[in-house]
Amino acid sequence: MSNQESICRSVLVERPLDEPESTELARVFKALGEPVRLRLLSLIASHAGGEACVCDLSGVFEVSGPTISHHLKVLREAGLITGERRGTWIYYRTVPAALGRLAGLLDPAADTDTAPATTAPAN
Amino acid sequence: MSNQESICRSVLVERPLDEPESTELARVFKALGEPVRLRLLSLIASHAGGEACVCDLSGVFEVSGPTISHHLKVLREAGLITGERRGTWIYYRTVPAALGRLAGLLDPAADTDTAPATTAPAN
Repeated sequence: MSNQESICRSVLVERPLDEPESTELARVFKALGEPVRLRLLSLIASHAGGEACVCDLSGVFEVSGPTISHHLKVLREAGLITGERRGTWIYYRTVPAALGRLAGLLDPAADTDTAPATTAPAN
Repeated sequence: MSNQESICRSVLVERPLDEPESTELARVFKALGEPVRLRLLSLIASHAGGEACVCDLSGVFEVSGPTISHHLKVLREAGLITGERRGTWIYYRTVPAALGRLAGLLDPAADTDTAPATTAPAN
């Protein structure tokens, strides 16, 4: 948890990532680096109520159920989604903190210290 | 360019990504899904003046020059950095628009439409 917090604050423009940070973050970006996984993530994120079960996700793709299950497992292991069993189905939700951490890392606008003032010099 | 603009506005929570978008974005995330590439990107982003040449990047990693060149090429092809030759060296810079696009896609806080009003109902 404390490791996650420290990574959360490391904006790319602020300082170079160290080896443990880059290894951990690369694993998460790698999970996003597959088209079906990205679509699954966006289907879950945009689904009514912010959650979706496999029954909502199957049929959207021309891939088998076991392949979908595999991709959901990769997203879970990367900490990008959680799954909760209720009755017959597992319901998946995105993890906003994990997505926000990646967004914060990449966002160039987060480097507010070096942003130039908009006032023009006297001429 | 118009394709990039449309992707820029597709926040995960807003609507599911379609196949072309997810294919294009997965390629960029895949480029980030490798620890040395992430470190190179952060070294370039955080370097003085926002740019770095291979001479600044070599020696930081226990990988060969050709391996660094390969990773820089992947980052360039993904549109995350640009390179400009000046004299002996190629100087690399990050592409803020590309990083901002990914950040905007992932940022859960970007879903402003569904954010509840902070005013409490009359009770």
